[in-house]
Formats: sequence, structure tokens, C-alpha cells
Amino acid sequence: MSEDALRTDLYQLTMMQAYWKSGHNPEATFDYFVRKIPSGSYLVTAGLNYLLDYIENLRFEDDDIKYLESQGFDNEFLLFLREFKFTGDIFAMPEGSIAFPIEPMIRVTAPIIEAQLVETFLLNKMNFSTLIATKASRVVHAAKGRSIAEFGLRRAQGDGHLEATRATYIGGCASTSNVMAGKILGIPVSGTMAHSFVTSFDHEIDSYRAYANAFPKRCFLLIDTYDSIEGARKAVIVGKELEERGEELLGVRLDSGDLCELSKQVRTILDYADLSYVKIVASGDLNEWKIDELVNKGARIDMFGVGTELITGRPNPALDGIYKLSDVVEQGKHIPKMKFSEETVKSTLPGKKRVWRMTENGAFIKDIISLDDEIVDNAEPLLKQVVKNGKIICNRPSLDMIRQRAALNFLHLPEKYKKLDQAPVYPVEFSRKLVALREKVIERIKREEDLVLSGKR
Amino acid sequence: MSEDALRTDLYQLTMMQAYWKSGHNPEATFDYFVRKIPSGSYLVTAGLNYLLDYIENLRFEDDDIKYLESQGFDNEFLLFLREFKFTGDIFAMPEGSIAFPIEPMIRVTAPIIEAQLVETFLLNKMNFSTLIATKASRVVHAAKGRSIAEFGLRRAQGDGHLEATRATYIGGCASTSNVMAGKILGIPVSGTMAHSFVTSFDHEIDSYRAYANAFPKRCFLLIDTYDSIEGARKAVIVGKELEERGEELLGVRLDSGDLCELSKQVRTILDYADLSYVKIVASGDLNEWKIDELVNKGARIDMFGVGTELITGRPNPALDGIYKLSDVVEQGKHIPKMKFSEETVKSTLPGKKRVWRMTENGAFIKDIISLDDEIVDNAEPLLKQVVKNGKIICNRPSLDMIRQRAALNFLHLPEKYKKLDQAPVYPVEFSRKLVALREKVIERIKREEDLVLSGKR
Repeated sequence: MSEDALRTDLYQLTMMQAYWKSGHNPEATFDYFVRKIPSGSYLVTAGLNYLLDYIENLRFEDDDIKYLESQGFDNEFLLFLREFKFTGDIFAMPEGSIAFPIEPMIRVTAPIIEAQLVETFLLNKMNFSTLIATKASRVVHAAKGRSIAEFGLRRAQGDGHLEATRATYIGGCASTSNVMAGKILGIPVSGTMAHSFVTSFDHEIDSYRAYANAFPKRCFLLIDTYDSIEGARKAVIVGKELEERGEELLGVRLDSGDLCELSKQVRTILDYADLSYVKIVASGDLNEWKIDELVNKGARIDMFGVGTELITGRPNPALDGIYKLSDVVEQGKHIPKMKFSEETVKSTLPGKKRVWRMTENGAFIKDIISLDDEIVDNAEPLLKQVVKNGKIICNRPSLDMIRQRAALNFLHLPEKYKKLDQAPVYPVEFSRKLVALREKVIERIKREEDLVLSGKR
Repeated sequence: MSEDALRTDLYQLTMMQAYWKSGHNPEATFDYFVRKIPSGSYLVTAGLNYLLDYIENLRFEDDDIKYLESQGFDNEFLLFLREFKFTGDIFAMPEGSIAFPIEPMIRVTAPIIEAQLVETFLLNKMNFSTLIATKASRVVHAAKGRSIAEFGLRRAQGDGHLEATRATYIGGCASTSNVMAGKILGIPVSGTMAHSFVTSFDHEIDSYRAYANAFPKRCFLLIDTYDSIEGARKAVIVGKELEERGEELLGVRLDSGDLCELSKQVRTILDYADLSYVKIVASGDLNEWKIDELVNKGARIDMFGVGTELITGRPNPALDGIYKLSDVVEQGKHIPKMKFSEETVKSTLPGKKRVWRMTENGAFIKDIISLDDEIVDNAEPLLKQVVKNGKIICNRPSLDMIRQRAALNFLHLPEKYKKLDQAPVYPVEFSRKLVALREKVIERIKREEDLVLSGKR
């Protein structure tokens, strides 16, 4: 924790010194939002828990100050940093919310020196956890009720593995292979055996017997090391041996080849041997599209193990979420702010804002972004206050509760928005007051920025 | 550190219990290698440092044991785990090596219970660090001598940011925005200002003056918030003000728009104002391909800030490196092992192996994979022993030394292999003895696995 204060971009700290030195430290409001979703129409938000821990513990330690001194920061500014705390307010969608592009998922209001610092940590955590929770939600949805085990630790981006696994669980995965995630986060752990286990024995069937002997009550056998059909036949032999001992073989795993065709053949072999209770697990570079295809083609697969693509978000390993200034208070007056640039898509929405959701019989119909002082009738406000004057004021739900909330929210999202590809855009509208404000601010900026150069100021 | 023992897949632990319970714990050799490189022809290896720390500190703590107990592991096996240490040997290519597909980058030899456990950690760390060091090498190469600043923290995969930044530095990046990486790893830090800094002030030029005042000796100004050309003109005003104070404006940054065209226009504006010493920095969703194009089109950019793609490896966020059993010793006799499956590409190479590199006037010509007892004349062995009987026996070079080694190795890689796309495949040959062994093992497995099912065993 103590190191998190420096988990930021250098420019946050140089800007802080510049704000501080110029005496320019107005109350500022920033919005966290996403312009474009990598795949699909919706996001499952995750990562807020990390932000709240960070806010609660944000301090510059002695060795942080010493490092910044070595980097040429002002001594007086560093004295200020020694006493630094976050004193502002944060509104956020709870973890496990369904969100859409453009709408603020988090709104931070604080003296700009404070609000600026938290940007990088917030983006680092929210972008990644939301990316992976969303990916997991897609994978789980594609499996149409079959369970998804997360097997990605070996391909995770290093130390990001733990929060990635947490996010896959929020998104609906049933279990993980990651034992540390089991211990620290309480996520159910699962696993079978590796090819090396099979090949380390003189014969494949010896490896099956050794495993069945060690885990008679939770025996899964990997059958594709040499030949999946032969492997299935040997699994039958061991399954029968387990029956003689009053136990049951839980399952077999396919990890290569034509998973659809092989699963059907293996199912036949198992059923023919009266082992219809034995489940078939499939793995091997799976993703939401491949699972969708397997399920649609009638693959006889009961459970999917998904690794690389789930834990990294491949093919889209980053959510391009941003944190943009929308309002500044100077001498008690709100001055709405926005960025616009050569690329209009990079413009932002000015003013302190709220987000509202309209539903019909529980189903999400549309969202509306309004200004902070507007009330939208018959709609639920999505941003809840989680931090007030630097103190956390919200409940901290358990991981299982967050997961349940995500599942419930997902249930209320109409089917058409869940399509893996070419899902329609969910309607996110702007209130009339927001549209008017935006036009006014663009006018104002154009006028003022021109003035400076023409020397009339 | 104490938690790293459980940073593994559940199946490693269940296999360990099965090995232990069946008394099957032969000395085993595993190879770490990559089948296919996501982009380009070569890899820059990184991550070994983490593996060595892990090996040195690998212990199961009381709370690890307690957790495993709750998951139904055998009490006697857990007693064994309490005393667990890694006692084997590891050979590895040093960090900053250039490696190619199929050739072992790490070779682990240990009792199979030990060698099995370390698989997941090794893959997690090596896959990610090598992926990012390789990506950085490509980005740096594309910039043809212009420096690359890593700006990716906000889009990094959560806690993976620190090792990712380390890897970008090994791959040749000059600096990072990540202050924590500066403090912990000693990497030079760099940064400019954000759009929010600019928009928080009433006028763009006010923000420039505030920054120049706070950092007169390292002032970079972001000029694209409203209009890049207008921004450049205002930067000239502030640059001249700095000159009056005996200081120099270091640079301006473009973050959107047509970077090539804008950089030329901005260069003209700066030069016309006698500010030819002011550098132009460009950023905004850059990668090796875009940088290559900008450089080839004559963009007047002196330095690139690269974020998302560099820190996540986008579009390929995972290196599919694997760890495969190649040899087992039973009753003093080596039994070469391999996997082959429906997909021949998933087959592996049997036997304990070495990797050799042939050079001509320093340039890499080809690599040869041989068996352990072979010597290839006029070639350098690439795998060096780093761990002996569980103890680290190699030097632990500083990060700067690793970075220099990577640069030197890269210099010796012939240009054609550095092409961003459609680089030729670097020749990696197998020794005749290895080819012969492979055929023999395939024969043996086919014979033996058939035998079991036909009941002749």
C-alpha cells in the first residue's frame, strides 16, 4: 500500500507542483468513461474496490519523498506532499454494473491537485478489471449455462493475474486454476492434470491409475496426450476400476484436436460403457467465439477451461478508458470544461454530470446523461456516492455479492445487446441542458483561445 | 514472496500429490520454449530474474498449508510440502538474449514433484516479460534512433505494470512515465502534462506559463488540447519568455491529429521563431507500425511516447510459451519423453537438450538444438547454468547491464530478421542425433500405447 502513491505517471506529480506553485488549486471534477468498447455493446464494471483501498491509504512515505527529491522536485512542494491526503468526493457505479460508452462510471470531485494524482491508479485498475469482467461475461454467455473454469495464470500479464482472476469471477466464471486466488479471494479452485503428468509415466494408463488413486473423489483425466480416442478408452478402464471401489470418475479433458467431433466420439465411448455421468471438459485456446461455435454445433462438452484469451482480454488487452476534466469551481462559480481537438471523437462532455437508467419491466431501455442538478423522472441514478470528504461511506460487498449483482444486472440487459458481434448500440442520450451547455462551452473556448493570439487580451 | 508457492495452478499441486502418493518421483527435465512468435522472427528474453528470486524463496507457509488442507489435500502430503524446497538444476539463456521458436530458453531438471510446481510461475513471468521486451525492441527499432518513452501505466494490466515497464527498458526504451518503476527499478522517468492541466486554466497560455514557472529547466508543453497549430504558437510565446529568463523550452507534445503533417507544421513554426532547439514529442495510440510509417514519411518527431500497445503487447497480449517434459530418469536410465497429438504442431522434442549459436563476423547465422552430450563445433552454447542443487550460481546483472546486453545481441542479429512484417524464419536446426531420437521415441510410444489396449500387456 505504502508504495501506491508513486504508482502514477510522472506528469501527475509535475502538474501537481505546477498547480501548487501557481496557487491554482480549484475544486475540479473528473469523469472516468470509455469511448469505445473493444468487443460487444456493454461493459461489466469492476475494480472499484481497489480504488477505495487506495483512497483510504493514500500517503507519501519518507522514501517516496526522498525519491522525488532526487528527481528535482521543490522542497516546499515535497513538504506539502508529506501531509497529502485525498479529501474529495467520489461517485461511482458499484462493481458489477452494466455500463455503456461515453457515460461516466466514476466521477471524482476534489481540489485539482488531489483529483489529478488519483487519475493514473484509477485508470490502471478500472480499465483492466472492467476489461476482464466484460470479457468473462461474454465467454460465460457464449457457454449457455455450461460452466467456465479460468485456466489463465500461465499466460496472465505477470502480477496482474490476481485482479484478472477476480474480474473473471465477477464476470461469471465458476472457478479458477489459480490457487493464490483461491486462498486470497476465496474463489473456487479447479484443475485436472497436465500432459507432463501423463508422459512422465511409462504408460498413459499408469498415470491415470496414479491420479485416480490419489484423488478417487475428484478424478479428471486428460485424454489427448497421445490419441484422444485411445485416451478415452483407457479412461473407461480406470472409470470402471473406480466404480469397483465405490467411486466415480468425474470427467475427462480434451485439450487439442477437433473438440466438437472428439467430444461426440468420447461421449459415445463413455455412454456405451455406462459412464454417462462422466463429464467432458474442453480446453485449448478457447474464447467466446469458439465456444459459441462449439455449443451451436452440438459439441458434447459440459465445461470449458479458458485461459489466455480470458485472462488477457485477447484480442483487446486494454480498455481505453479515460479520465477527463469536466468542471472547475473558481470563486464559487462552476466553469464547465471540455477538451476538443482535431479528432472530434476525442472531445469530452462538460459539466458535473449524473447518469440515469430507464427500465421497462426490469429490462434496460436507455440511459440518460444529465447535468448534476437535473432529475430524470422514472429513472434510476447509476452513480452512487462512495467517498465523501475523503472517507469511504459505502458498503464494501463481498466478492460473491458483486458477482451476483453482475449476474442480476446482466439478466436485465436485453438479449440483443448480448450478441457477440454486431450488437446494436445501446441508447445513451444527453439531457437537453447538457447539449446546450456543450454548445455554449465550445463557443466560449473558440472565442477565448483565438483572442489570446490576436493580442486582444 | 511467502505467497508465491500458491501462485500456481491447482493441477500442479494435485499432480504433486499423485506423484508423491504413487512413489513416482523420478528426476525429470522440462524445456521452456515458444512455438510461435506473435509478431516478427525473434524474441528478446526477459523475466529470469523473477524466476531466480522465486526459486531461492520457494516455501509453503503455514497459511498456505492450512488453505490446502481446506481443499482436501492429504495430511501426509502436506507434511511433505512443509519441508518442500527446490533442489534441482536450471540452465537458461540470460535475460536480454535473442531467442527463436522451438529452442529451449530454460531447461529445468529436478525431481518431478519440484519441477512440476515451478511450471506455472515460470510461464507466468517468462511469457509476459519476454513478450514485452520483444515488443519494446520492435518499437525501438522502428524509431530508428529516436528515443521511446513508455507511457503505458494507465493501460497496463493492473499489477503487471512494474514488470512490464522493466521489460520495456530491457527492450530498449529510454524512460518511463511510471514513477514507481523509477523508484524501485531505477529507470529514468519522464513526462509532460495532461489535457486536464491545460483545460483547468482559463486560457491555454496560462497553463503553459504556470508549468514553465514550476519547471523552467524541464518544460514540455502539450499543444493539442484545442488546436495544435494555435498551441504551437502559444508555446513559442512561452518559449521566448523562457529565453528572457535565460532558460530554454525543452519540447512540445502532439497527442492527436495527423502527427506527420502536424509535426512538420509545428517544426516550421518553431524554427521560424528561432526555437530550433525545441524538440517535438508525439504520442497517441502509437505502435511499431505507426512509428515506422511516421519515420518513413519524414515526420519531424524527435521522441515518441508509447503507451497501450507497448505495455500490453497489443495486438498480441500473450506469449504462448510452454514448459514440456523431455526426459525422465528411471533406475539410472534416461527415458526421453515427448507429447504428440492430433495436431502435429503441438508435438515436442524429446531428451535433455542444448542450444548452440553459430556466428560469422559476429552476426548470428543459425542455431542448432542438440542433445545434452553433444558438442557443436564453432558455436556458442546459449543455455548457461543458473541454478545448481537449488542454489543460484550465476551473477545477477543490474537492469542496465541486461539492457546493454540486449542491445548488443540485437546488433548481432542480421537486419532481415528485424523486419516488422514478413521477416524470414531464422534457421534453427536439429542435430542428427536429436532427429534420430525423436523418431525412436515416436515409434516406442505408438507401440507401447497400442499394447495396453489390445490387452497384451
